[in-house]
Amino acid sequence: MRLTTMTDYSMRLLMYVGQHPGRLCTISEVAGVYGISEAHLMKITHQLGLAGWLETVRGKGGGIRLAAAPADINLGAVVRSVESDFALVDCLTADNACMLTGSCRLTSIVSEALQSFMAHLDRHTLADLLPAPRDGAPRLRPMTFGKRPARVPS
Amino acid sequence: MRLTTMTDYSMRLLMYVGQHPGRLCTISEVAGVYGISEAHLMKITHQLGLAGWLETVRGKGGGIRLAAAPADINLGAVVRSVESDFALVDCLTADNACMLTGSCRLTSIVSEALQSFMAHLDRHTLADLLPAPRDGAPRLRPMTFGKRPARVPS
Repeated sequence: MRLTTMTDYSMRLLMYVGQHPGRLCTISEVAGVYGISEAHLMKITHQLGLAGWLETVRGKGGGIRLAAAPADINLGAVVRSVESDFALVDCLTADNACMLTGSCRLTSIVSEALQSFMAHLDRHTLADLLPAPRDGAPRLRPMTFGKRPARVPS
Repeated sequence: MRLTTMTDYSMRLLMYVGQHPGRLCTISEVAGVYGISEAHLMKITHQLGLAGWLETVRGKGGGIRLAAAPADINLGAVVRSVESDFALVDCLTADNACMLTGSCRLTSIVSEALQSFMAHLDRHTLADLLPAPRDGAPRLRPMTFGKRPARVPS
């Protein structure tokens, strides 16, 4: 049982960006840290942008940053926005042809188990995944889309 | 997020056999009903036999039957015995090289969510997946390994 790579990398991308508040992160930087292809990360960044979790600043000195405070980025909501496949078993797909469809309880029991899984994620936010900020360390603050980063990456 | 095909088919195989108590089912019969390859089902049957959920009767007139009453076949236990991959995210694998391993809470939060998922399955047995037996319909009864089936498949 696995979440898709898209979801796995999405969580890691948000965690990395969340650990570097106050500056813009670049895709090549994150790709290098995690050993993930830049092309894959670009796709994920785009998806997280559409879902409202990341903001992208284009141009020289641009990069990505969180679109909300970590405490406002709910993990269950993130997973729902990027996980493309919640059909844990074939009979949960729309086009399944199982002879038992409609007469067995497998789908409902597995669906309820999935709800328990998601309910646990719903109780956590990105803030729970990040280390406590050190004294004096930069905290995430509202930034205007398109603004140049306040400081260069360390 | 998906269970492996092995787990999916294992549940369906147990459901089919559980719906035909009092007789032996054949792999070719189950393969035909679900549209699954016989070779795949043989592998699954072997695994379910090792785990103690199915019994196999060899020879002419042989087949497979449940090794216990449906109410004694716990769904969580079945999934644990056949699901080969519970590493929902890469950082749950033993050989992951994530820079955050040991310092982030993603693994623990996802592991707890998985425990919630499995706890729900633990509250159900194969009996919950089967239709209530009709009056006079055959019920599962203890059978000696190697005994010929009491009646031929209907």
